[in-house]
Amino acid sequence: MRKIVAGVDIGGTNTVIGLVTQEGNCIAETSFPTQEDAQFEQFTNKIAAQILTLIEQQNNKYTILGVGIGAPNGSYLTGQIIDAANLRWKGTLNLCNNIEKALEVPVLLTNDANAAALGEMIFGDAVGMKNFVFITLGTGLGSGIVVDGKLLVGHTGFAGELGHTNVKPWGRECGCGKRGCLETYVSAPGLRRTAFNLLSESIEPSALRSYTYDSISSKTISTLAQKGDRIAIDAFENTGAILGMKLADLVSILNPEAIFLFGGLSKAGNLIFEPTKRHMEKNLFPVFQNTVKILPSGLIDKNAAVLGAAALIWQTQPE
Amino acid sequence: MRKIVAGVDIGGTNTVIGLVTQEGNCIAETSFPTQEDAQFEQFTNKIAAQILTLIEQQNNKYTILGVGIGAPNGSYLTGQIIDAANLRWKGTLNLCNNIEKALEVPVLLTNDANAAALGEMIFGDAVGMKNFVFITLGTGLGSGIVVDGKLLVGHTGFAGELGHTNVKPWGRECGCGKRGCLETYVSAPGLRRTAFNLLSESIEPSALRSYTYDSISSKTISTLAQKGDRIAIDAFENTGAILGMKLADLVSILNPEAIFLFGGLSKAGNLIFEPTKRHMEKNLFPVFQNTVKILPSGLIDKNAAVLGAAALIWQTQPE
Repeated sequence: MRKIVAGVDIGGTNTVIGLVTQEGNCIAETSFPTQEDAQFEQFTNKIAAQILTLIEQQNNKYTILGVGIGAPNGSYLTGQIIDAANLRWKGTLNLCNNIEKALEVPVLLTNDANAAALGEMIFGDAVGMKNFVFITLGTGLGSGIVVDGKLLVGHTGFAGELGHTNVKPWGRECGCGKRGCLETYVSAPGLRRTAFNLLSESIEPSALRSYTYDSISSKTISTLAQKGDRIAIDAFENTGAILGMKLADLVSILNPEAIFLFGGLSKAGNLIFEPTKRHMEKNLFPVFQNTVKILPSGLIDKNAAVLGAAALIWQTQPE
Repeated sequence: MRKIVAGVDIGGTNTVIGLVTQEGNCIAETSFPTQEDAQFEQFTNKIAAQILTLIEQQNNKYTILGVGIGAPNGSYLTGQIIDAANLRWKGTLNLCNNIEKALEVPVLLTNDANAAALGEMIFGDAVGMKNFVFITLGTGLGSGIVVDGKLLVGHTGFAGELGHTNVKPWGRECGCGKRGCLETYVSAPGLRRTAFNLLSESIEPSALRSYTYDSISSKTISTLAQKGDRIAIDAFENTGAILGMKLADLVSILNPEAIFLFGGLSKAGNLIFEPTKRHMEKNLFPVFQNTVKILPSGLIDKNAAVLGAAALIWQTQPE
């Protein structure tokens, strides 16, 4: 029987499970709403059951080697989810233990952005890179950092929370309880907040003036920007200015070879890449100028988090 | 003959050379002004000659194993100093090559703050720590980062330039050509600039009003603060607020176990440690609160850079 790894991506909305080969092919996938079960153990039992079902559906061709999981606030060191803001179960959750008991194979956990960074390193465009940063721009801003060929884990397992670095003291309110966090400016909702701020500051005509706050998406702003809407273009410019400035800080600290952008907002292409790169270069300490690439993820249309979660297990195996 | 390593600390003012044992004892030391020689090769020849003299003075008891060097803008990867702002020789300087040719032993280079971080790890209070940050608060702000037990070097060898991360767009002018760099606020000159700004903003009586800008040192401000001078106390408070805020960012990125403060400004003790710690905790993402120690360096009265430079060589040796 061939070996296979289950990669699990636990998101605030859906949990996606895929069976991933050593080459990074996802041969089967399933998903279910994350927050249906009142008890966390019901949820982990469901993950285990779904993995077994996926394996059975392959007609006994595969034996499972282990389970890799990416989850918000997931700690690689303890295998626990700790105080995840967007999950219904609070406190410390023994994720790996529960699934290990059910399936009797090794289970490894990291946070969702770290998992995706690992996916980029092992199956994407960071193959061969020793020092890079992977940033997901979605409903929040997540990041995974690779230093010297290894995921930067940190002392308590939570390194890479770039989304909660500070842009502005007393800046925008963040879901985490602080103010001025990077993800309140640079994320899909951050772009929307910036667009609405620009509508309030400027008298420029804009198609955005006919949208409610709740109905507007980053995709809409992107489409309008491509059509030449000034406010929409400026929303991307301002978002790129803030991201570029913070990336300059990050480069001063980490000196990476490349920074990958992933997730909904990154699909706006040059609307976000060009101002980000320009403002990063403008803010860089001379020795770092023109040394770092800002690239789209090589896993852009794949489930990077599922692949990366699986990579947690595959990287423990000999080639 | 016993083995010994030469540790060299190249500063903007003086170059210090020490002979360091595997246990981290500096058995002999010498120094000379850094910027006397018009040609860089004269300077490197002088380093080599002084090392030989120090060895000879030990009555043939020691054989030299190698030379470790800490220098501003020193690259571990290339052995070169590149565009150091505070040295008279410009461009790319082949430091390691020149000294290797003269002494025929291995020569390793890193920047001065990285060298000191290594000193803390191998001979100081970071022994046994896998993830920590070392910050020197002197005429500038330098930093060395240790991740997973190894110095964070980065893609081009310049990781750890925390001093040139941005505090405020269009903030204070920095010697590097940018504006608003952390070291323009948090360093000995940064403290002085803050004190002078406070003198301009406030009408509070202060002994600082009788000093010229050029004559005031961070030591003076510290002494006055200890005597209760309000402006001097506030200068430390504001400095700690800015450092604490940036350390919160750093913790979000790196999740270290401890942050060591070293150098002139760190000798002010609680005047700087207390506000730094308080403002860091206030700005931390919840998962990091109360997880990181801010500590004085364990090498506070030693030449951390010389010990750390020597550690570059010693760490390549078996115990």
